[in-house]
Amino acid sequence: MAEASGRPAVLPRTMHQRRHILDLDDFSRDEIVRVFDAADSMREVMQRDIKKVPTLRGKVIVTLFYEASTRTRVSFEIAGKALSADVVNLSASGSCVSKGVSLVDTVRTLEAMGIDAVVVRHSASGAPYLMAQHLRTSVINAGDGWHAHPTQALLDLYTMRGHFGALDGLKVVIVGDVLHSRVARSNLWGLHTMGAEVVVCAPPTLVPAAWRAGCEPQVEPPPSRLLPPVRLSYDLDEALPGADVIMVLRLQRERQQSGLLPTLREYSRRYGVNAARVALARPNALVMHPGPVNEGVEIAPDVAHGAQSVIEEQVRNGVAIRMALLYQLLGGR
Amino acid sequence: MAEASGRPAVLPRTMHQRRHILDLDDFSRDEIVRVFDAADSMREVMQRDIKKVPTLRGKVIVTLFYEASTRTRVSFEIAGKALSADVVNLSASGSCVSKGVSLVDTVRTLEAMGIDAVVVRHSASGAPYLMAQHLRTSVINAGDGWHAHPTQALLDLYTMRGHFGALDGLKVVIVGDVLHSRVARSNLWGLHTMGAEVVVCAPPTLVPAAWRAGCEPQVEPPPSRLLPPVRLSYDLDEALPGADVIMVLRLQRERQQSGLLPTLREYSRRYGVNAARVALARPNALVMHPGPVNEGVEIAPDVAHGAQSVIEEQVRNGVAIRMALLYQLLGGR
Amino acid sequence: MAEASGRPAVLPRTMHQRRHILDLDDFSRDEIVRVFDAADSMREVMQRDIKKVPTLRGKVIVTLFYEASTRTRVSFEIAGKALSADVVNLSASGSCVSKGVSLVDTVRTLEAMGIDAVVVRHSASGAPYLMAQHLRTSVINAGDGWHAHPTQALLDLYTMRGHFGALDGLKVVIVGDVLHSRVARSNLWGLHTMGAEVVVCAPPTLVPAAWRAGCEPQVEPPPSRLLPPVRLSYDLDEALPGADVIMVLRLQRERQQSGLLPTLREYSRRYGVNAARVALARPNALVMHPGPVNEGVEIAPDVAHGAQSVIEEQVRNGVAIRMALLYQLLGGR
Repeated sequence: MAEASGRPAVLPRTMHQRRHILDLDDFSRDEIVRVFDAADSMREVMQRDIKKVPTLRGKVIVTLFYEASTRTRVSFEIAGKALSADVVNLSASGSCVSKGVSLVDTVRTLEAMGIDAVVVRHSASGAPYLMAQHLRTSVINAGDGWHAHPTQALLDLYTMRGHFGALDGLKVVIVGDVLHSRVARSNLWGLHTMGAEVVVCAPPTLVPAAWRAGCEPQVEPPPSRLLPPVRLSYDLDEALPGADVIMVLRLQRERQQSGLLPTLREYSRRYGVNAARVALARPNALVMHPGPVNEGVEIAPDVAHGAQSVIEEQVRNGVAIRMALLYQLLGGR
Repeated sequence: MAEASGRPAVLPRTMHQRRHILDLDDFSRDEIVRVFDAADSMREVMQRDIKKVPTLRGKVIVTLFYEASTRTRVSFEIAGKALSADVVNLSASGSCVSKGVSLVDTVRTLEAMGIDAVVVRHSASGAPYLMAQHLRTSVINAGDGWHAHPTQALLDLYTMRGHFGALDGLKVVIVGDVLHSRVARSNLWGLHTMGAEVVVCAPPTLVPAAWRAGCEPQVEPPPSRLLPPVRLSYDLDEALPGADVIMVLRLQRERQQSGLLPTLREYSRRYGVNAARVALARPNALVMHPGPVNEGVEIAPDVAHGAQSVIEEQVRNGVAIRMALLYQLLGGR
Repeated sequence: MAEASGRPAVLPRTMHQRRHILDLDDFSRDEIVRVFDAADSMREVMQRDIKKVPTLRGKVIVTLFYEASTRTRVSFEIAGKALSADVVNLSASGSCVSKGVSLVDTVRTLEAMGIDAVVVRHSASGAPYLMAQHLRTSVINAGDGWHAHPTQALLDLYTMRGHFGALDGLKVVIVGDVLHSRVARSNLWGLHTMGAEVVVCAPPTLVPAAWRAGCEPQVEPPPSRLLPPVRLSYDLDEALPGADVIMVLRLQRERQQSGLLPTLREYSRRYGVNAARVALARPNALVMHPGPVNEGVEIAPDVAHGAQSVIEEQVRNGVAIRMALLYQLLGGR
């Protein structure tokens, strides 16, 4: 849906000019660090007895979710309200967004009502780019198709920084259904920019075709663009030694019906992250997962709830990161 | 659903006494002007950096939508929050309103909870009147069946006043599916009161039967009451010369299935508003549409987005008008 | 779903320590009186021109409804907002709670986001207990299966106290489908603690089996625990003389399909509360109903809207009771 020609205009390179958050590919190292610093302040706010500051009083944030979601929508809603913004929720069910009204018409209407930001989730890759081309209002991508989920990637990076101080030289193993994962794609951009080394580990059927051919990895489906270089492995036991972070992706159970997987049990045997596999990584390696977790499929219950798991910390950091982003986009105007 | 005998009690004539907004038929010229003046103040609030005033702090407004809607519900929600009211959303899906609980029981319950106003949309003409008969709480009609949509009409009139200063003597051509249009009916009342001349233009199958017979126009279906006099035309090219405003109605695509229309293409050829037709009206005629727009059906894309289109301005004014109405109903108590 | 062994930890006996509200079985007389006293203050707030106090500013309350509800969800939302808390609504439709994500995973995620209380309605008896075992965040049961609805029972008791000053020695007749009624079960606990005498009146098919056998009454289904002693009657006309309160339960029309009832008409003839039956009770006996009412089935319209009916007062008191509970759980931390 996005046209390459339109992107530079909507994606200025510095936070000073930034209006939209569409993916991490246009975030510089400096900008990411500034988001982290702001998130540190927001974590401090969240620990106060009165978890609320008046920063965004009078601003209106709309969450526009064309796909069901609990954690991302609620995380943004809590973040916005903690900054005293008014948050208006719109979902596909129960609104005209389900009646064939076009995305662009919907967001133009919202913009005319004077809103300040729209947080959008959509099943079509590129939908937030299309919106950004038509809006002066800030667009925040809360997940588009298989393409990008930049706020999730920022909270993942921020969680790593909290434990390791910096990301340079960290070895991050991303394991699971990379083919369909917007979380993985956005993390690839962010990890590359921050100097981490990434190994992607998945069965051949769950890896983009271009990667299998040994080509420079490319995003599929569109917007089809180069991704930063990654190492690819089909063998988790071979990938894990030396890992500082094991990032486990959610396996959509529908993948089995589609013939991309033999059985969940077979998947779990070869790519499931259990205690024995965690022991192959560095002693204090972090276990991460974007949630919701399929316990016993991509991750063993004792690992998901174990000492090295930072899954709940990711959720907690998600609110701080979203507060930081809303503040930086809307606070200074 | 409404009984004529019950209406005077719920429809006092002056704003001082006004409790409900059900249609524009009982708004005097003075009262409409007072709403406009309040809306001017609200537009000023919306342009501030902090778009929020404490006027309705501690008031509770419920939006009760039995039909899906994006723009009207969100417009009221933003208006209420900008005045610092608490806004509670109730829709048919996900609540008891879908379980056969009667409308009157639902609103009596809401009233007992101490709410101050209920904004209702319902597919049945007259539903807000039924509610108003049983409530001390303010009822605002946000669209009932084919019958009325007074806040839409007020924002339409307000948009015209913004461009022409006054409405007296303006020629307004309303084109499209008048038969099923609550927007048209409420506009007829308001335009008549404000001294505009109205021409209604539609295919014979989309005009109330009484109008076709050359009778005094009447609303169908019930509540069946006299409408102010209008001129009726079946020929758009004949109707447009001299027009100051072209108000295009949305064509529900379902009308074709119901046999009321030959084809969309034929409709578009005879009643679609395109650049050539706009040129027949006065040089600076406004093109209006209540949205959402079916581009290429009732209106050409270049007209909908053209220099004479005020469609987005209507949306923007909608928030100001609803703030003004909420303020006038709830602010002074 | 609840395990007996886990309950003492989550159910401390004094309000000072109380974190959760799961049922009334662990509320002492003193604690109930303290809730009533706080509710008196909240009623005073609700009568102010600005019905809002800053007590819970910065607190986040999530309503998590796996079953549709209007009145209970909205009552909690209005109560939370009146105390200046931020209220986030989550329902099964339109969120991951419908995608097989486990209840415990959902609430752990919400807790990690820093919320302060979760108000839950669930079709499974015991679900709020399961949550409470895994959360530090406060859990408030807004109705679980056939099991408990403690905030409804508290508002019922509070309404009785408002009319009689105290509950000791009052005769309360609960009539209707006790078998499936969480409202009845929670009221039994509260009425027993407050010293009222209870008579339960229902057809034999709508009474728990253990009661029919003449055993000590027990809750079915699990959590299966002793209930306080009650008198059981199959004959409403025999039960009513001397009653101070007639508490009518809602009859789910589905019960007829399930074979538990002959016809609604037969039910109404034998157990419907009409004016003649109200006349059998004490002269100023209260008629109560948790709503929504099936007029003409379990209660005659003239009784539901008659002088002895306090149904709307129950709704009004519901907001005050929920404000009091939220204040006592969250206000002092």
